[in-house]
Amino acid sequence: MSYNKEWLCWSSNELNDKIVEKILTTCPVRNYAKGEFIYRQGEKKDVCFLVLKGRIEISSENEDGQRKVFGIREPRCFIGISTLDGSPSLVNAICLEAVEVAVVSAQDINKGDREVLLYLLLSVIQMNKQLTSQLNGQTFDDVENRVENLLVTLSATLGKHEADSVVVTVPLTHQLISEMVGSSRVRVSQIIGELNKSGELVMNRSNYKLLKKSAL
Amino acid sequence: MSYNKEWLCWSSNELNDKIVEKILTTCPVRNYAKGEFIYRQGEKKDVCFLVLKGRIEISSENEDGQRKVFGIREPRCFIGISTLDGSPSLVNAICLEAVEVAVVSAQDINKGDREVLLYLLLSVIQMNKQLTSQLNGQTFDDVENRVENLLVTLSATLGKHEADSVVVTVPLTHQLISEMVGSSRVRVSQIIGELNKSGELVMNRSNYKLLKKSAL
Repeated sequence: MSYNKEWLCWSSNELNDKIVEKILTTCPVRNYAKGEFIYRQGEKKDVCFLVLKGRIEISSENEDGQRKVFGIREPRCFIGISTLDGSPSLVNAICLEAVEVAVVSAQDINKGDREVLLYLLLSVIQMNKQLTSQLNGQTFDDVENRVENLLVTLSATLGKHEADSVVVTVPLTHQLISEMVGSSRVRVSQIIGELNKSGELVMNRSNYKLLKKSAL
Repeated sequence: MSYNKEWLCWSSNELNDKIVEKILTTCPVRNYAKGEFIYRQGEKKDVCFLVLKGRIEISSENEDGQRKVFGIREPRCFIGISTLDGSPSLVNAICLEAVEVAVVSAQDINKGDREVLLYLLLSVIQMNKQLTSQLNGQTFDDVENRVENLLVTLSATLGKHEADSVVVTVPLTHQLISEMVGSSRVRVSQIIGELNKSGELVMNRSNYKLLKKSAL
């Protein structure tokens, strides 16, 4: 498996406590239930959100109901920054569990703290690199490589190292993988099956284990 | 043809004269000849650039020499912002003609003007939306639709309206189109040929003309 650490999908932001506290002194907190949309494709809004609790899926859907998942966002990530220029959102933000966010308005950003602005910039840069990597993958790589890159990348950011393997504790279904790499669920199941058979990968409902020689 | 105004490829930034002047008071100007690289894939640098003159191709290349063109940048665009976090560049910036840029360092950004920081943020947001749209196109659309979207989008931003058509003055080769939409030159030539035959498109070396009913 090749190693592509740029293709981060589950990404926690590097925001420190001080910045989070600073944001919380001026921005209201809002709660969402599992399954709720924080914002929808096509929606205009003049706020973005700092995730405080829970996990959120960022995805788009075409007229035929085909879905593309761009990533899963976790606490200390900003989401929805791309609509701050007044344009409609290109993606949906759907709560995968109970979610708490701080609502950061365009006004907060325009008049607010300089340090917060810098972190927002770093956060969009991070997204930008993920999108560039995914677009490179979608242009150059076949579906096997895209699946492998996803598994390896997650292991690089979230993996816990054991003697000869890396364990990644994320609930990763074949359906979700297919919507992340832009392929069919059937094709993804086939690829996962082959990796399983070769002993490189063991996949369970809530985690997966990669042989270290595959992961690195 | 469908209309997808988000997929901007040739994009001038909305930077006003005041901001450009502000940047020029602190940032040095650098010149590049046609064909020179401003930065390369894999390169680390702690500066970004404000384009002042000329046109720059942003692209990546895989080990087999396959190329993906992300876009062409023109004056008043920032380029290279994504490496400001210290990570290696995922793309090449190649001068298509003689180019003049202002070199904006990470330090300039950290300590500099708040308004410049806001424009940088808007600029990365703009890139972000282009990448999201391209990734959506690459995931959902077939090559015909991607070519048509590219032609229509360019006409929406750069087109000059005539009675029954829109004229877009950009040098757009079949090769460049294929590298923008992620397909082969042969396939692109075939698609352009079909559009030509149906009368929807007339394509020359330095411009193309779209029937208005196709463009809107």
